[in-house]
Amino acid sequence: MDYTIRAANVEDCQDIARMVMELAEHNKHSDDVKITQKDLEQDGFSKNPFFHGIIAEVPEKHKTKEGHTKIGYALYFYSHSSWKGRAVFMENLYVMPEFRGKGIGKALMSKVAQLGLAAGCNQLNFIVLEQNKLSKEFYFRQGCSDMTADIGCRYMACNGEALEHLAQP
Amino acid sequence: MDYTIRAANVEDCQDIARMVMELAEHNKHSDDVKITQKDLEQDGFSKNPFFHGIIAEVPEKHKTKEGHTKIGYALYFYSHSSWKGRAVFMENLYVMPEFRGKGIGKALMSKVAQLGLAAGCNQLNFIVLEQNKLSKEFYFRQGCSDMTADIGCRYMACNGEALEHLAQP
Repeated sequence: MDYTIRAANVEDCQDIARMVMELAEHNKHSDDVKITQKDLEQDGFSKNPFFHGIIAEVPEKHKTKEGHTKIGYALYFYSHSSWKGRAVFMENLYVMPEFRGKGIGKALMSKVAQLGLAAGCNQLNFIVLEQNKLSKEFYFRQGCSDMTADIGCRYMACNGEALEHLAQP
Repeated sequence: MDYTIRAANVEDCQDIARMVMELAEHNKHSDDVKITQKDLEQDGFSKNPFFHGIIAEVPEKHKTKEGHTKIGYALYFYSHSSWKGRAVFMENLYVMPEFRGKGIGKALMSKVAQLGLAAGCNQLNFIVLEQNKLSKEFYFRQGCSDMTADIGCRYMACNGEALEHLAQP
């Protein structure tokens, strides 16, 4: 199937917001999604963006029955490791179910890797949920390693009142 | 004990590189440190930095027997979560052993939280190694949660030949 992968722009935020929710529903975490289309517009497409995005798009003739042609996306940002140096973090990778198995997810991830290497990054990082067996198998096939299993990396978070409290001098 | 916390500048990179190595040795991963003082200078203090840093410093009268007054640091960068929106990722938090137990680590982490909140972040993330029981206890006391335990977040990496291969179109 024909598809193109291109940099996301602010006009894509409606579809990104839709697919963020589809991905969260797939992961049974839709209640945890607090961001809106407007947040994505502000956070990804202002002067100092917090993330960048790429979009997978199909021609009109392959549009979904709801009329969607933007059928996959990845979000990423540049990061750093005091061991490895420059790194890129892939925040989301998603392809709509009916378009899976055609190499589109691989192509999106490959583009993030290309962009990272071009920026001098030595490492691509991301989070995968333990429950996503198919995703984990996909990532292992790409040569990725599970740093939680290999060296015991635990992913930690502080938010809400705990974050406010922590910030008190 | 008197100490100050301030933004890191390029002249701090020698001490940051020293403490990065001390932290890695503490974690028994010093062989994994591939970065140098020069990498830190380039990656943290160029036009589009990959990270930011803060330094904990003590007065001359409290310097170590090796003459160090820069005795702790944190590195961080802005990140994003498609659930929570703007986030800040604390890459490293370190205080030299002889200066622990005085609230300096807490003060460094608190500063990262303040900077994150000021930038509109809703979440502070970081990695802790499973083996670091004291660190984990410290983070739990600050109200942090373990997303690996709570929802099964696995921290993944792709680097070296696997990353090069992934980037092939």
